Amino acid sequence: MDLGGLRVNGERLRASLETMAAFGATPGGGVHRLSLSDDDKRARDLFVGWLREIDLEVVVDEMGNIFGRRPGLDESLPPVLTGSHIDSQPNGGRFDGILGVMGALEVLRTLHDEGVQTLRPVVIVDWTNEEGSRFSPAMVSSGVWAGKLERDWAYSRTDKDGRRFGDELQRIGYRGAVPAKSRPFHAYYEYHIEQGPQLERLGKTIGVPKGIVCLHWYDVHIEGKANQVGPTPMEGRNDALVAAARMILAVREQPGELGGNMVATVGEIHNHPNSRNIIPGRVDFTIDIRSWDDDLALEAWAQLSRSFAEISEEHGCSLQLEEIWRVQHTPFDERLVARVEEVASRLGYGTHPMVSGAGHDASYMTMLGSTAMIFVPSKGGRSHVEVEETSWDDCAAGADVLLQCVIESAMEA
Amino acid sequence: MDLGGLRVNGERLRASLETMAAFGATPGGGVHRLSLSDDDKRARDLFVGWLREIDLEVVVDEMGNIFGRRPGLDESLPPVLTGSHIDSQPNGGRFDGILGVMGALEVLRTLHDEGVQTLRPVVIVDWTNEEGSRFSPAMVSSGVWAGKLERDWAYSRTDKDGRRFGDELQRIGYRGAVPAKSRPFHAYYEYHIEQGPQLERLGKTIGVPKGIVCLHWYDVHIEGKANQVGPTPMEGRNDALVAAARMILAVREQPGELGGNMVATVGEIHNHPNSRNIIPGRVDFTIDIRSWDDDLALEAWAQLSRSFAEISEEHGCSLQLEEIWRVQHTPFDERLVARVEEVASRLGYGTHPMVSGAGHDASYMTMLGSTAMIFVPSKGGRSHVEVEETSWDDCAAGADVLLQCVIESAMEA
Repeated sequence: MDLGGLRVNGERLRASLETMAAFGATPGGGVHRLSLSDDDKRARDLFVGWLREIDLEVVVDEMGNIFGRRPGLDESLPPVLTGSHIDSQPNGGRFDGILGVMGALEVLRTLHDEGVQTLRPVVIVDWTNEEGSRFSPAMVSSGVWAGKLERDWAYSRTDKDGRRFGDELQRIGYRGAVPAKSRPFHAYYEYHIEQGPQLERLGKTIGVPKGIVCLHWYDVHIEGKANQVGPTPMEGRNDALVAAARMILAVREQPGELGGNMVATVGEIHNHPNSRNIIPGRVDFTIDIRSWDDDLALEAWAQLSRSFAEISEEHGCSLQLEEIWRVQHTPFDERLVARVEEVASRLGYGTHPMVSGAGHDASYMTMLGSTAMIFVPSKGGRSHVEVEETSWDDCAAGADVLLQCVIESAMEA
Repeated sequence: MDLGGLRVNGERLRASLETMAAFGATPGGGVHRLSLSDDDKRARDLFVGWLREIDLEVVVDEMGNIFGRRPGLDESLPPVLTGSHIDSQPNGGRFDGILGVMGALEVLRTLHDEGVQTLRPVVIVDWTNEEGSRFSPAMVSSGVWAGKLERDWAYSRTDKDGRRFGDELQRIGYRGAVPAKSRPFHAYYEYHIEQGPQLERLGKTIGVPKGIVCLHWYDVHIEGKANQVGPTPMEGRNDALVAAARMILAVREQPGELGGNMVATVGEIHNHPNSRNIIPGRVDFTIDIRSWDDDLALEAWAQLSRSFAEISEEHGCSLQLEEIWRVQHTPFDERLVARVEEVASRLGYGTHPMVSGAGHDASYMTMLGSTAMIFVPSKGGRSHVEVEETSWDDCAAGADVLLQCVIESAMEA
C-alpha cells in the first residue's frame, strides 16, 4: 500500500465539523459550547460513538479526557497521540479546538477504512476544558494529565454560578475511573486553526509553528478620587480613567519600541463607579504580554511599570501592580516541526514558519515528549468570535498533513 | 422682634441630619437611600411627622412631592418656597439633598418657635427622585411640577429590576391625590452643599451661585474587531479600547484648550467582550460637558467629534456619536442672588460668587419664578460618595443665611 498517497475524506471531515457545530450553535453562526455544559456532553456522546464505530478502545479518565486507541503491530511501543479540544469560547467559533479533534478522527477513520496497520498504536484525545472560559484556568485537564496541576484542585474550580468542576464532570457522566496520569507517547501532534492573519496575508496553507510564545499576565489597579463631575474643576482631579487611558496607550506602544514580534494587550477593564456624572475613582485593567523572547517580555513589563508609576504620580492616583500568571515560551520538538514542514511541502502546500501566539494543550505535552502543531489559515485572522472561519479546503489540507505526519511517526521503530 | 437677629438652632439641625443619616446608612459612613425605597419611605414618614409637629399643613402630590405650608398674614400672596430632596445617590453621602430639606425645616422650626408672623406663607418642599439614580432622569418630579415632563411618562420609568416608578410610589404610600402642577411662588431658595472644592480652597463659608451651567451628554460607540490577542500582530489591529483611550485623553484636554471654566468628563465605559485575552472589539463610553457658556460647550463637542473621527479612522474602527441630553445654562434671579450675598456678608460669612456645576430642582424652578441657591463647603470637594462631608458649623451657617433670606422674601409685599 502506498501510505504516502493516502488522503483524508474532506467531505466527511466537513460533515463532522458541521454536525459538531450544531451543539451550542449561536444565531450569529458561531458556537457557545462551554466545558461540561449539556452541549459539551452531547458533543462528547456523539464523539465517543464515532470512536466506537471504528473499533477504537475508548477510555475516559478522571478529568473527563477522552482517549480512543487504535492498536499497533507492536503494542509494547509508546503510541502516537493526536487531538485537541471539543469545548469552545463563549460565543466562539466553529473551528477552534474541534478542528483538531475532528481532524484526528478523520485520520483514524482513514487508517481504519484503508486497513492500514501501523507499527505503533495511534491514540486520539479530546482534552477537557482547554478554553478555561467557564472554569479557570485554561488547559487544566492536559495540565493534570501532565502532572503539573492537582486533580482535586481542578475539581474544586468553580464557574461564575458557583458550580464545581468535579460536580459538573460527574453530572454529565464524564468523570471516569482511570487516573489522569500521563503515559509515554512517541509523538504528539495538535492540529489547530492559526487564530491570526499571517497565513492568509502570505497566501500560505500550512503554518509550521516552532513553539508557543511566552505568556505574562498582569493586573493593574488605579485608585483616584470619585467626585461629582459638574462642580469639580479639571485642575486637581484624580481621574483614574484618564490615568488608565494613558497606560493603555503605553501598552499599545511598548512592543513597537522594543522590537521583536511581541504583542501586548489590554483586554479587560473595570471602571468604578462607572456612572455618567461621577469622575472615575478606581480602574482595574489587565495586561497580556506575549513574546518568543521571555526576557524581552520582562523588559517590556519593567518599562511599563516605570511609566505607570510616573503616570499615576502625575494624576495623583495610587497604583498597585500584580503578576497573575507567567508561562515561559515553549519550543516544540525540532524533528517533528521539520516533519510537518516536509510533509506539507511534499503535499504541495505553501508553508510558513511561525510561532503560536496562543497557548494550547500542546504546551503541556512538550513537557512530556516530542510535540508539534499544524496550523491552517483563519479568515481575516479572526478567532474566539462567531465569524471565525477556515475554508473546507484548508481544513482538509491540514488533516492530510496530520495524516501523513501520524503515519510517519507511527511507522517509526 | 428683631427678625434680623434670628438664628437657627445649629444643634437641632445637626440632630435632624444625624437622624436622617440612619435611613439607608452604609458601613462606610454614607447613605444609600434610593428614591421610593423602604428607607426613603421611613425618612419621609419621619419628615412628615416633623412637619405636623410645627403645625404645617402637609400636602403630598401625585408625584410624591411633599409640601408643608406655614400660613402668612396675607394668604392671597404667593408663598416663599424652599427645600431640596431626601433621596440619595447609591452609596452617596449624608448631606447631598437632605441638607436643603433639614435646613428648610430648621428655618420653619425657628419661625414656629419664635412665633414669627410673616406676610407671605412659607412652604417647605421635598422633591421626589432628584438624583435619578434609581429612576432616570434626575429631577423628574420638579420637572413634572414645572410642567416640563409628563406625569404618566414619569410613572412608566423603570428601575434596573423593571419596577415602575408609579407602582413604587404607590407601594410606599406617597402617590398623593393632589395634581403635581405648579402654583405661583414669590421666591424659591434651595440650600445645598457645593459638591466641589472651591469654597474650601478659598476659605469661604457661603457660595453664591449665579446659576447652573449647561449640561450636554453624549454617547460614543466605537466598533473595532475582536480577536485573540496572542496570534494577532500589533500591526493591523482594530483595537476599540486603544481608540477609546485616545478619545478619553482628548476629552480630558479639551476644556484647557478652549478656556472658560468648562469641564468635560468620561464617567462610564463599557468594553466588549472585556476578556483578558481578546482584543476589544467594541467600546461604548459617555461624555459629560458643562459650561456657563453654552456655545463654548458646543464648540468643544464639535472639536471632539472631528478628533474622534480621525482617531477612529487611524485605528480602522467605525464610530457612532449620539446626543443624549442637552440643557442650557440657567441663570438665577439676580435680585435673589444679590440677597444671598448681602445676607451672608451681613452675618459675617466670607462669600464667593460661583456657578453650580450640578443640576438641581432649582433648574426647573427658574423656569417658573425667582430662584436662588445657597452653597456651603464640601470637605475635599467630595460628593456622591460615602465620605461626603460638611462641618456642622457650615451647615448651621448656611441655614442661618437661608433663614434670613426666607424672612426677607416673606416680608416683601
